[in-house]
Amino acid sequence: MLEELKQVVLEANLQLPKYRLVTFTWGNVSGIDREKGLVVIKPSGVEYGKLTRDDMVVVDLEGNVVEGYLKPSSDTPTHLLLYKEFPQIGGVVHTHSPWATVWAQAGKGIPALGTTHADYFYGEIPCTRKMTDAEIQGAYEEETGKVIVETFRLLDPMQKPGVLVYGHGPFAWGKNPYDAVHNAVVLEEVAKLAARTYYLNPSVEPIDQSLLDRHYFRKHGANAYYGQ
Amino acid sequence: MLEELKQVVLEANLQLPKYRLVTFTWGNVSGIDREKGLVVIKPSGVEYGKLTRDDMVVVDLEGNVVEGYLKPSSDTPTHLLLYKEFPQIGGVVHTHSPWATVWAQAGKGIPALGTTHADYFYGEIPCTRKMTDAEIQGAYEEETGKVIVETFRLLDPMQKPGVLVYGHGPFAWGKNPYDAVHNAVVLEEVAKLAARTYYLNPSVEPIDQSLLDRHYFRKHGANAYYGQ
Amino acid sequence: MLEELKQVVLEANLQLPKYRLVTFTWGNVSGIDREKGLVVIKPSGVEYGKLTRDDMVVVDLEGNVVEGYLKPSSDTPTHLLLYKEFPQIGGVVHTHSPWATVWAQAGKGIPALGTTHADYFYGEIPCTRKMTDAEIQGAYEEETGKVIVETFRLLDPMQKPGVLVYGHGPFAWGKNPYDAVHNAVVLEEVAKLAARTYYLNPSVEPIDQSLLDRHYFRKHGANAYYGQ
Amino acid sequence: MLEELKQVVLEANLQLPKYRLVTFTWGNVSGIDREKGLVVIKPSGVEYGKLTRDDMVVVDLEGNVVEGYLKPSSDTPTHLLLYKEFPQIGGVVHTHSPWATVWAQAGKGIPALGTTHADYFYGEIPCTRKMTDAEIQGAYEEETGKVIVETFRLLDPMQKPGVLVYGHGPFAWGKNPYDAVHNAVVLEEVAKLAARTYYLNPSVEPIDQSLLDRHYFRKHGANAYYGQ
Repeated sequence: MLEELKQVVLEANLQLPKYRLVTFTWGNVSGIDREKGLVVIKPSGVEYGKLTRDDMVVVDLEGNVVEGYLKPSSDTPTHLLLYKEFPQIGGVVHTHSPWATVWAQAGKGIPALGTTHADYFYGEIPCTRKMTDAEIQGAYEEETGKVIVETFRLLDPMQKPGVLVYGHGPFAWGKNPYDAVHNAVVLEEVAKLAARTYYLNPSVEPIDQSLLDRHYFRKHGANAYYGQ
Repeated sequence: MLEELKQVVLEANLQLPKYRLVTFTWGNVSGIDREKGLVVIKPSGVEYGKLTRDDMVVVDLEGNVVEGYLKPSSDTPTHLLLYKEFPQIGGVVHTHSPWATVWAQAGKGIPALGTTHADYFYGEIPCTRKMTDAEIQGAYEEETGKVIVETFRLLDPMQKPGVLVYGHGPFAWGKNPYDAVHNAVVLEEVAKLAARTYYLNPSVEPIDQSLLDRHYFRKHGANAYYGQ
Repeated sequence: MLEELKQVVLEANLQLPKYRLVTFTWGNVSGIDREKGLVVIKPSGVEYGKLTRDDMVVVDLEGNVVEGYLKPSSDTPTHLLLYKEFPQIGGVVHTHSPWATVWAQAGKGIPALGTTHADYFYGEIPCTRKMTDAEIQGAYEEETGKVIVETFRLLDPMQKPGVLVYGHGPFAWGKNPYDAVHNAVVLEEVAKLAARTYYLNPSVEPIDQSLLDRHYFRKHGANAYYGQ
Repeated sequence: MLEELKQVVLEANLQLPKYRLVTFTWGNVSGIDREKGLVVIKPSGVEYGKLTRDDMVVVDLEGNVVEGYLKPSSDTPTHLLLYKEFPQIGGVVHTHSPWATVWAQAGKGIPALGTTHADYFYGEIPCTRKMTDAEIQGAYEEETGKVIVETFRLLDPMQKPGVLVYGHGPFAWGKNPYDAVHNAVVLEEVAKLAARTYYLNPSVEPIDQSLLDRHYFRKHGANAYYGQ
C-alpha cells in the first residue's frame, strides 16, 4: 500500500546525507496521505545506505503500525502531532544538522538577518521553550510535538516552515516530503549565515520589515514573481 | 541569436555550483553584447543541473524579452542597471555565497587585510547603505542597482569588481561572464579570510597603502608582471 | 593468526580518513582478542592508502610484538593500558580530529549541550589534567594511558566512551574497533557543535539532567527503544 | 635537463589543489638541484589543471631563466633567497591557504598549542615583521625573502619549516619539494586548530617545553622512534 508515497519518502530521506544534513542515522523524513490518514516514515536507526522502499513503515495517526516489518523512527510521535495540528503540511523532517543544532543548543531563535532568510521564512525561526522534567519523563516525543505547536500558537507554520527544539535540533516541514527537505536545507544554510554574522557582529539587528516583506512575498502568495 | 554568448553565460552559470557559491537556484550570471545592446541571463528559479543553452533568456537594456521561452532572473533589472552605468563591464554575477553574505548581513564592507585581497580589489570592498522603504517597495531590483551605483560614485568599478548589498549579498562583475565569476570566487575567498581574521583579532587594521599598491599593480595595469 | 581481527582493525583504520578524522597518518585503531590476550594495531607512520591486512601488528598486553614485520603504532602503550584497565572495551581509537583536538588544546572538557551529545555520552566528555614533566619524560605513552584512567576513576568508561588528553587530542573506545570509530566520529561531531555553540553564546549551560537521562537511556540499557 | 626534478616539482605543485591549499593559481612549489645550482619552479599564473612537466621553468640562483618557454612564478626571487640562505632545504612552497593566511593577516605567529604542532614545528611558527615601504617598493619579492631570513636569524629553519609573511601568507620548505608540501599541509592544519582554540579560549597558553620536546624529538633527530 502507498507504494508511491513510500518511494517519495525514501528519496526524501536519501536527500539528507546528500545535502550533508545528517551523520550516521541522525535524521528522518515522513510524508502523509491525508485522505487515508496514514503516514509513511523512515524506520528507526537504519543506515541511509541500506534503506529500501520496503523498509518504510506505514503508521496511522495514533502511531499504530499498519504496514512494515521494522519499527518506525523513535521520533514518530512528534511527526504525528505536527500532522494533526498543522493540517496544511504534507511532509516533516527532523535532523541534527550542524548549524541549526548550534542555535538549538544556544536556546536562541534565528533572527532574519538577510534576504536569504526572508526568501523562505517570514521572520525569526523560533526556538521552543525548555521542556519540563514532567514532559521529558512522560511521553517525551509526543510532548516534543506539543511544545512545537505551543511555540506556533500565534504563528503560521506555513510562513515559518521550521523550528528549533531547545537543546535538541531542528524540525522542518512543507507541502510534501521533498518540500520539507528543501526547507530543512534552507534552515541549515540560514543558521550558518546567521551564526557567522553574529560571530562578526554580536549586536547585529534583523532586517527591516519592508525588506522582509519584499523578499518573502516575491516568492510566496498571490503576488509572487520569482520562478517560472 | 547570440548563440555563442548564450553558451558562455550557460557555462559561467554552471561554474557557480562548481565553486560552491550557490545553494539551490540562489545565483545568476549574465553577459552583454555591447554592439547589439542585448543581455543574456539565466532564467528565474531553474535548477543548475537542468539548464541548457536554449534556456538562456535574451533581453534588451530596458528589460524586454527579445528571445527565450522562460522568464529571466528576477534580478535582471539590477544587472541591466549595472551594464548601463558601468560601461566597461561585460558580465555580472549575483550569489548568496556563504561568506560574502555574512559581511552583507553584518552591514560592513570587507577591508583589505591582506595581499590576497589586494591582488584583485584595490581597497575595501564596499557595502551599500540600507535601502529605504520607498526603494524596497518600489522598483526594488532596479533600485538595488541604483544603490550599488551610488556606492561607486567616487570609486572605479574596474578596480573593485564587486560589492555587498546591505542585508542581502554580493554582486560581482568583470570584462566578461567568466571574469565576473572569477571575481565572485575571489570575493567569497577574501570574505572568508577577513571574517576569520576578525574572529581572531577584532582590532586588525587594513594593510598599508604601499603593499596594496604593490600587489594590485603587480597584476593590473601597464606595469603588471604577474602571469604569462 | 587473528586474521579476522586483523581484517576488522584494517577496515576500522580505513574508516578514519573516510570520516575525515585524520590528516596523513595521524591516527590509529586497535582491537583486542580478550581470550588470547592479544591486541592487533596499526603499524607506526604507514599511510592509510597503502595499508593491508598483513601490515597489522599483533602485540601482547606487555607490548611485545607477537606477529608482524612492522613496528606497532608509537601510541601502543596507551592502547594497552586502556585494555588492561577498562575490561569491557574491545577497540580503541586515537586521532587528532580537528574539533576534538581544539577542546584538548583549550584544556576543557566538552559539556553536554544537547541531545546529540546525550545520545552517546552520559555527561561531559572529560579532559585529563596536564601531565607532569616526569610523566612526559618517562614512559610517556603509557603515562598517557594512566592519566586517562585517573580521569575515569569515578566515571564509567562505557557511559563516556571517549576522553580528551590535555594539549594533545581525543581517544575513544567501544565494544569493538568499529564501535570505537563510531564513537570517535560522534565525539568529533559533538565537539564541533559545542565549540560553535560557545562561539555564539559563551555562557551557555549544559542540558538538564532529565533530558540527558531521557536521550542516553533511550539508546542504552534495559529500557532502550531506539533502533531495531 | 633536470627532467626528474621537473617531474617532482610538477607533482608537488599538483598536490596543492589536492590538499585544498590553493584557489585558482595562488601557490607555487619549487625544487633545487644543489650540485648544479639550478632551481625548477612553476610558471607564473598557469592553471594547475593544465600544467605539464615541460611547463616547469629552470632558473639559476640569480633568477636567469636557463630553460623553459614560460615566465617563472613572480615569487621566484623569494624562493631563490631562501635556497641561498637556508642551505639544508631542497624545496619551497608558497600558498594563500585559508587558515595560515588568517594568522598572517592578523600579524601573529602561531603558538604551539598542542602536540600536532609539536610533532612538526619546534615552537611558535613565526610571523615576519611588517615590511617597510622601501622594501615593498623596491625588489619586493627578494625583500620578502630577506625579511623571512631576518625572522630566522636566531632560529633553525629545519626545526621550524615554515613562516607567515605579515599581511600576506605562508611559505614552507623541506628536504625536497614533497616534504615542503607536506609541511605546508601541516602548517595549514595547525593554523586551523590554533585559530579555533583561540576562538574558544583567547587566553590559552602554549604547551609546556617538556611536551614540546617529547613530541618533536619523538619524530626528529637521533632518538626518534615514530614511523618505520
